[in-house]
Amino acid sequence: MNDVRLAVCGCGAVGRSVVELAGNYGHELTAVADSTGAAIDETGLDTAAVLERKRTDGVVGPAAPEALFEAAYDVLVEATPTTLGDAEPGYGHVRRALADDRHVVIANKGPVAERYGELSALARDSDGSIRFEATVGGAIPALATIEELDRDAVTAVRGVLNGTANFVLSRMAAEGLDYDHVLAEAQDLGVAEADPSFDVDGTDAALKCVIIANVLRDGGFSLADVSVEGIEEIPGSALELAAEDGRTVRLIGEVVGDRVQVGPRLVPENGTLAVTGTMNIVQIDTENAGPLAISGRGAGGPETASAVLADVGRLPPL
Amino acid sequence: MNDVRLAVCGCGAVGRSVVELAGNYGHELTAVADSTGAAIDETGLDTAAVLERKRTDGVVGPAAPEALFEAAYDVLVEATPTTLGDAEPGYGHVRRALADDRHVVIANKGPVAERYGELSALARDSDGSIRFEATVGGAIPALATIEELDRDAVTAVRGVLNGTANFVLSRMAAEGLDYDHVLAEAQDLGVAEADPSFDVDGTDAALKCVIIANVLRDGGFSLADVSVEGIEEIPGSALELAAEDGRTVRLIGEVVGDRVQVGPRLVPENGTLAVTGTMNIVQIDTENAGPLAISGRGAGGPETASAVLADVGRLPPL
Repeated sequence: MNDVRLAVCGCGAVGRSVVELAGNYGHELTAVADSTGAAIDETGLDTAAVLERKRTDGVVGPAAPEALFEAAYDVLVEATPTTLGDAEPGYGHVRRALADDRHVVIANKGPVAERYGELSALARDSDGSIRFEATVGGAIPALATIEELDRDAVTAVRGVLNGTANFVLSRMAAEGLDYDHVLAEAQDLGVAEADPSFDVDGTDAALKCVIIANVLRDGGFSLADVSVEGIEEIPGSALELAAEDGRTVRLIGEVVGDRVQVGPRLVPENGTLAVTGTMNIVQIDTENAGPLAISGRGAGGPETASAVLADVGRLPPL
Repeated sequence: MNDVRLAVCGCGAVGRSVVELAGNYGHELTAVADSTGAAIDETGLDTAAVLERKRTDGVVGPAAPEALFEAAYDVLVEATPTTLGDAEPGYGHVRRALADDRHVVIANKGPVAERYGELSALARDSDGSIRFEATVGGAIPALATIEELDRDAVTAVRGVLNGTANFVLSRMAAEGLDYDHVLAEAQDLGVAEADPSFDVDGTDAALKCVIIANVLRDGGFSLADVSVEGIEEIPGSALELAAEDGRTVRLIGEVVGDRVQVGPRLVPENGTLAVTGTMNIVQIDTENAGPLAISGRGAGGPETASAVLADVGRLPPL
């Protein structure tokens, strides 16, 4: 869909970048909300003013956050932080917009990984539909590519789906440093968060694998179905040994048949899956089309916003 | 679009694979034509019987080829061989189907590279639309990915777009053999055609670059706008010298601003663009989403058919 009215829910790095870039795609912003307020203008918001207010006052506007759902809009962009379990408040936002027969583009992994079946049922009962490319691999169009293949002929999907873990493993291998040292460096650089648990223990990559599995097999998977191992226990010596053999270690997420798993794996040092730094890669093995690999930046505001805005373009007319 | 009626025009490797795989995507085949005959059944062809007849009798069926256009179908798949200049008969087939308000999925590079402006005008005047993912990079979803980006923010597209040339260069580098030797080997293996001119002189890659440029800049390019150099003059010693420096040679096509060119380039030996064998890769540099790279098999019947069938899925309802 082109030239649509967007309502953006959530004003972190991704939400702010969507606000900033939507105009480049011909879209208009009619509502933006964060957890404490909302800015609404049905004739089109002054996006620079909204972002400036967020920066200086810490809120986007004077209205109540719930007012966003009363605004005139065609597509809700759900970009609140990922939460596990009931995936609230993200799930409730999606449900509300679908009940009002609007499309929803979701950047929040929680609802898609944890409540996929319910989400699909809500979308079936709505004139609106859901898309969620931004939940997997940042800028990489992994889900759209899978969706357009003969999914029964996809034999495996494998990838590097967490940039923080990949940065840590790349640096450990390149510099011969140990895990704690490199993690501290990553935190200094802003590549790792103050609490990097979900990135290094494999949870974030597991959520992305669940979403891939749901697209591939038409639902049925949640985080509880994934076997997950993180990178916290990998000694620097393991990377040295791997290098002597022309290999290195990457945190690989994979969906093969109905098995979904995440863990450190040995991969060829110059092979497709050995992307470096914060890059992500998704490799799709198919029976008829051979292997396809897509790499790009797996995180970041503008990168993820570009996946959100590509999804808006893929929506059918309402 | 799902569950549509396809008419397939052209019964070479790509056309035959479309006939074979269409059922896996839920589509029905109502007409298939080669240059001398056609098989038509508006209730759905027996595809195995059509392929068997083509194999044993050399023609797909008893009707005249033109009868295909009178059949009941929703989407024409144009898969006749690429021709340059007026791009006939492919161009005429596309024009006829659009005049009848049908969609057209094009696997033939000629019309899209040589007559893009006319093609776009025909599509504007029709209820049908055109798609042509299969013309660039075989199984790789390069055009769909570019289309969904903010095209004004794409700063460059670069890639390895000819599998034959890439096979020859990879083998020359790996085995220290010279061009003529490796080309003969490629012909024995069926990787290079008896007349490999368009593959090794850069014409095939140039056509693909023209198509990328047309998608990126909304038309205006044809083969005459490309600066083209092939790989026929590269001595084995050039690859040896490159290897001493950690680099290798690849036939790279690129679109940067309004400049379109194809020629041998030095690239890092383990870098993104140094795919080996018959693989293709397309790298898209963007201002907001960073670099995206997509690799896969650049040719082959089932691989290219999978791009055709992905395009059918992307079509809007008629």
